[in-house]
Amino acid sequence: MTNRQTNNRQVALGLDFGTESVRALLVDLDGSEKGASVSAYAHGQIVETLPGTGEKLPADFALQHPGDWIESAAQATRGALAKAELSGDDVVGIGVDFTSCTMLPAFRDGTPLCLNEAGEISQRWGAEKFSWPKLWKHHGAKDQTERFNQLARERKEGWFDRYGGIIGLEWFFPKILETLENAPEVYEVAEVWLEAGDWFVWQLVGGDADSLPRSTCQAGYKAMWNSRTGYPSPEYFASLHPKLKDVVAEKMPGRWLAPGVAAGDLQQTIATRFGLSPGTPVSAATIDAHAGVPGAGASEPGSFVMVMGTSSCHMLNAVEEKLVPGISGVVEGGILPGYFGYETGQAAVGDAFDWLRRTLGHDDFEQLTARAKELSPGAEGVLCMDWFNGCRTPLMDGSLKGAFTGMTLGHGPHHLYRALMEASAFGVRWIVDLLRENGVPVTQFVATGGLPHHNPLLVEIYADVLGETILVHPSKQGPALGAAILGVLAAGDRVKAFSSAAEAVTAMAGAKRGVLGRESIVVAPDESAHKQYDSIYARYRELANMLSQK
Amino acid sequence: MTNRQTNNRQVALGLDFGTESVRALLVDLDGSEKGASVSAYAHGQIVETLPGTGEKLPADFALQHPGDWIESAAQATRGALAKAELSGDDVVGIGVDFTSCTMLPAFRDGTPLCLNEAGEISQRWGAEKFSWPKLWKHHGAKDQTERFNQLARERKEGWFDRYGGIIGLEWFFPKILETLENAPEVYEVAEVWLEAGDWFVWQLVGGDADSLPRSTCQAGYKAMWNSRTGYPSPEYFASLHPKLKDVVAEKMPGRWLAPGVAAGDLQQTIATRFGLSPGTPVSAATIDAHAGVPGAGASEPGSFVMVMGTSSCHMLNAVEEKLVPGISGVVEGGILPGYFGYETGQAAVGDAFDWLRRTLGHDDFEQLTARAKELSPGAEGVLCMDWFNGCRTPLMDGSLKGAFTGMTLGHGPHHLYRALMEASAFGVRWIVDLLRENGVPVTQFVATGGLPHHNPLLVEIYADVLGETILVHPSKQGPALGAAILGVLAAGDRVKAFSSAAEAVTAMAGAKRGVLGRESIVVAPDESAHKQYDSIYARYRELANMLSQK
Repeated sequence: MTNRQTNNRQVALGLDFGTESVRALLVDLDGSEKGASVSAYAHGQIVETLPGTGEKLPADFALQHPGDWIESAAQATRGALAKAELSGDDVVGIGVDFTSCTMLPAFRDGTPLCLNEAGEISQRWGAEKFSWPKLWKHHGAKDQTERFNQLARERKEGWFDRYGGIIGLEWFFPKILETLENAPEVYEVAEVWLEAGDWFVWQLVGGDADSLPRSTCQAGYKAMWNSRTGYPSPEYFASLHPKLKDVVAEKMPGRWLAPGVAAGDLQQTIATRFGLSPGTPVSAATIDAHAGVPGAGASEPGSFVMVMGTSSCHMLNAVEEKLVPGISGVVEGGILPGYFGYETGQAAVGDAFDWLRRTLGHDDFEQLTARAKELSPGAEGVLCMDWFNGCRTPLMDGSLKGAFTGMTLGHGPHHLYRALMEASAFGVRWIVDLLRENGVPVTQFVATGGLPHHNPLLVEIYADVLGETILVHPSKQGPALGAAILGVLAAGDRVKAFSSAAEAVTAMAGAKRGVLGRESIVVAPDESAHKQYDSIYARYRELANMLSQK
Repeated sequence: MTNRQTNNRQVALGLDFGTESVRALLVDLDGSEKGASVSAYAHGQIVETLPGTGEKLPADFALQHPGDWIESAAQATRGALAKAELSGDDVVGIGVDFTSCTMLPAFRDGTPLCLNEAGEISQRWGAEKFSWPKLWKHHGAKDQTERFNQLARERKEGWFDRYGGIIGLEWFFPKILETLENAPEVYEVAEVWLEAGDWFVWQLVGGDADSLPRSTCQAGYKAMWNSRTGYPSPEYFASLHPKLKDVVAEKMPGRWLAPGVAAGDLQQTIATRFGLSPGTPVSAATIDAHAGVPGAGASEPGSFVMVMGTSSCHMLNAVEEKLVPGISGVVEGGILPGYFGYETGQAAVGDAFDWLRRTLGHDDFEQLTARAKELSPGAEGVLCMDWFNGCRTPLMDGSLKGAFTGMTLGHGPHHLYRALMEASAFGVRWIVDLLRENGVPVTQFVATGGLPHHNPLLVEIYADVLGETILVHPSKQGPALGAAILGVLAAGDRVKAFSSAAEAVTAMAGAKRGVLGRESIVVAPDESAHKQYDSIYARYRELANMLSQK
């Protein structure tokens, strides 16, 4: 035991809201874990039938229950405190990360349309599916998204290039327009449209609608907001639907705060329910993947943080804003205060490996991995295109499809598996090339999330394909750790632990030193393999060209 | 029992030489099976070590032992006679089909270089691997084949277009040149180079080397021979190697006879060993796949006979000679006397299905088939290129590779399986289109071989993709039946059963009437599915274009 561990009673609380559950993590100010607890949402993802009525939902619907977020967060927080043997008084700050864009319509008092003030399903609106929060993966706004893109192109909207010239099916305003067109009465009665992460923070700190704390991260990456120009113009919104013209002025009150900036102090009712102390500082929310950047200790610009899971989100801070075609977005203060945060992504990573395993029907994945590892770069000619869930960066086209080419009767499942891993690595290399070609420096590589820990061969292949050393961050709960760091930043002078955000990030999650009692794994590239991959990567890009011709 | 079965004591013997074994089939003159027997070669395929010395063979070597052919044929013939309770006197004619190009060097008395006159391994030459028969699948002549093609192109050889502008790695002269370049002493001492099928028939009928019966089928499809112009010129051979200049004049004595033409009468020594009667007429040999054409009852020009197995060979007779790019060959009298025989092929069919099953690791192929059958045409977007062993017709390029495209996380093994079956069907449609576009009429479709019986869904998909009715011929031993029919033709006036070859084929193997006690299965196309396949086939051709760009 170190002195610090025994003497320092100050901890930060990170609340990490996933798709199925919320994780509460308590860490002290050198990043040591004190206690953690996970609590699943009672209603999980609502994809089959609407609670209350039992109405069967369309296939592209995915909803959530707002009461689950409060109840599960309370349970997880109490659980983490109990494990840590700490009280609410020991918590110096609270940070929140949330899936995004998960969003909902509410009244000005914060009550979600689908619930009443007591938290029960609303008799007036609860039976209308469009009154419920839409989960990030809700895909009901396909038509609307197409029109958002078409009109942005036609009108040469200035903000459009910050999103690589395309906005996504899962974003904020397409989801609003979907409701306006399918349930106009819901649109009319809604007084506030907001992100679920912002709604949760609002519940914690209270206050009226005009001061509700909105995250610049969520607004910037999912709602075309910019610190200098705000949201798109009323004229643009009017071109999509007359009633959408004043959506921002009429239905989006609030203050815009960067993650790590204090949104307010914890109010009494929530403090009691969570076992916390009233008055504890709460940070503005952030997107779950983006919390992985501070959570991976990446405080420096140029650190490319690969948050690898079912899909991958690759993020980077830079001191300059560059318009890069095909990225998900660049947002000032979107990840950490003071930098331009770049977001890019791959739509199927862990998901694709699971799918291949299922499709191949091979139960013994260890043996498959061992045989794939024995193969040389190039999987003896098998080349894969990893677009099994479309292509996010750089082509931003969900309709693109995966492929395997170069196959002969002499190939087996291990060739396919290695080819898929290589394709995933080529996808990352394409993104890194794209950033560098557009003047965004990329100098360091950090892998985080569950996948790099479960699949060391994948990280080796990434390092060889990139020709770069990769640090595998030891934290397996990076977003929760990042959220906790944002909680410390929100506490600011009240904790006086660090002189800057960068210092806090380095101290609590620095990838080069041990955190949470473990050292980072350093994976260096094999230069001979890297040379071999150069020409195979060229073939991958040719294949991408062929398969994306329409 | 019909009158014919009880009264007619005349049967024909078909000897069908495969890669691992020989089948003897006795049928009467209405095609009813009287007895059959299979005998495996004692040495099988010689691919590991050379008999006698134990020398390890190179990976691309595949040899056979000539003694196996005689011994196994004797055993199979005796076995078939015993089952049929017939004597050698009942056999009116003998036909022989053989794998091709399986070939060997011999002395003018018929003794193979690798053996002595007693049939034992030769002390002088047996330790030299190039003195042994090369099996059809021997792939040692890669370099030589390239030069044969290059020089034929450069010299604008007139015969080259009959082979679609490319000759194959497994053909006769590349195999000779390989020996000349690697073991010149073997080339020097060899007095006769010949096909194994011709060697076997020569053993049956005896006679000196100048009258040895060579099959126009094997010479035409595998040795660039033509009924009007003979073999390529000495100048062409000299351009490849000075010593090859007079290979035809010096080392290829014999008479050229179409399958079904009498090569001679059975000589006493063999008759005794086989349990047959001396003097029985023996037909000139044919290639095993080509024997499948009469064996499938296809006596009419325009009948497209699909011999479907590990690979597929599709054959057709026509009254005119057309030069079709990418076919394996067109040979006058190559399949049946009086017609031009066209040969085309697909390099991986049953092999590819076996490979997919292994790769997918799914033991329950019935369930996989059932699920694949439920899918609509197009396998929900998955598109396959069936070049898992290269492309034979029409691109004639063994280096081309297979692929699956259009894949998403929602697809499973049954999608891949259906896509592979559809790709195989598209490959056939491409061949049929090619023939028709070049003026070769294709009017009727007959499927034969083991695969159509094991995989009825595949035949349905073929019918739907082609938009044509397919007859699945009831014989599961089509080549052996075809060989037996050639034996009857060779008997000619001595049996006086039929007035023409066509009459014999129809009587003994007519696909529209029951043969061997079974009716043909008639598979009609589903017109709605056929329409859907039109656009999917167009996408298959686009994919083929993309994947064949170099």
